[in-house]
Amino acid sequence: MIEKLEHTHGGVTFEAHLAFPPSEGPHGAILIAPTWRGQTDFERAKAERIASELGLVGVAIDVYGKGVTGTSAMECVKLSTPLKRDRGLLRARMLAAFDAVRAHPRVDAARLGAIGFCFGGQCVLDLARAGAELRAVITFHGVLDPPEGLEVGPIRAKILALHGHDDPLATPEQLLAFETEMTKLGADWEVHTYGGTTHAFTNPAANDPGRTMYSERADRRSWIAMRAFLEEVDLITR
Amino acid sequence: MIEKLEHTHGGVTFEAHLAFPPSEGPHGAILIAPTWRGQTDFERAKAERIASELGLVGVAIDVYGKGVTGTSAMECVKLSTPLKRDRGLLRARMLAAFDAVRAHPRVDAARLGAIGFCFGGQCVLDLARAGAELRAVITFHGVLDPPEGLEVGPIRAKILALHGHDDPLATPEQLLAFETEMTKLGADWEVHTYGGTTHAFTNPAANDPGRTMYSERADRRSWIAMRAFLEEVDLITR
Repeated sequence: MIEKLEHTHGGVTFEAHLAFPPSEGPHGAILIAPTWRGQTDFERAKAERIASELGLVGVAIDVYGKGVTGTSAMECVKLSTPLKRDRGLLRARMLAAFDAVRAHPRVDAARLGAIGFCFGGQCVLDLARAGAELRAVITFHGVLDPPEGLEVGPIRAKILALHGHDDPLATPEQLLAFETEMTKLGADWEVHTYGGTTHAFTNPAANDPGRTMYSERADRRSWIAMRAFLEEVDLITR
Repeated sequence: MIEKLEHTHGGVTFEAHLAFPPSEGPHGAILIAPTWRGQTDFERAKAERIASELGLVGVAIDVYGKGVTGTSAMECVKLSTPLKRDRGLLRARMLAAFDAVRAHPRVDAARLGAIGFCFGGQCVLDLARAGAELRAVITFHGVLDPPEGLEVGPIRAKILALHGHDDPLATPEQLLAFETEMTKLGADWEVHTYGGTTHAFTNPAANDPGRTMYSERADRRSWIAMRAFLEEVDLITR
């Protein structure tokens, strides 16, 4: 069952796409933060897979505003840059989406996780950095750089970053800086690094060798790793 | 069922400890290379767990010679240093153990993997670097530095390194060098890095904070990751 959920923040209306498992619930939920394109069929399909395969509410959230997506790289830069420059605004929008989801009567607010892809990885890490009450935050080829000038932590979510070694948006140096940040914050964190793998490895349309490239292997491995992590935090059972 | 298997190499007799699943077989097998102490109850217990839990032959191999183990750090240094200095000898001993195991009538030579702990990680990586026909090589807090002056590859095994971020024997620089080595060799490789985790995280007796320390969490996660990896290469089924 699909439901659209609207909420407003700072005068902007946002629309989340919720996919529910068949049984009544309430169920735990996984927020899915979008790539820099905004909420598309990619994220909505993940929501539906989470509902059908994992028995959790899959929630493709929205950080740009209802119906706003980028179709060219230039548009995506234009949409994402204000939030990358103002990480306080990004955090506030993530917290607003989080609050809207956990207030839903069919969602069990004590059983929440969040995943994100590319820019969406940055979004869900910023939600964790804000101290949100999530059991797990998992990034797929996420952007890892810390927010500047924002108060961070304590981090309550367990963190799993699923990472392509050749990702030009998260170089080995940036990965190490992220690991150092998480360590200093005392987070429970884990990183999986896939060899021969670039940015956007979960996206079947990615086809720019050395930069963004689909990898069936890393896509499959990362989904299995996500499942194991959600089992560890008791959001799903094996 | 337990069986001892002797073989000789270079005038030295070695003894492997094999644990068999109850059914007749032949079965796939997992070689277990020891820490710098040599083959102890730690490795033999892993062999038995592999047999009972995974339905594979667990083989605690021997690289020092039958019955030879170190009981103090000084003895372990004395035992391991000749093999660390002469990686050609280490490789030859690993290949000899590998050949002895795959010649066993109850072992399916087409279904082999190898795991190793600490120094044993180096041992099984060197077996992979020698091009041995293994489906998977998995290291637990393994020593990662490449052999000097030896011909390496092609690597046939899929590689998984399970690594503590704070491991002083495999620093972030050494990890990156390993990842670069594996990438250059065209290996199918993956690294899991555990935050707040040191060397020897699988060893319940390790208790030297910041250097070697047992971590129930990393021990559990790494075993689960090993299982998923063995599933991927069809050595076990879920």
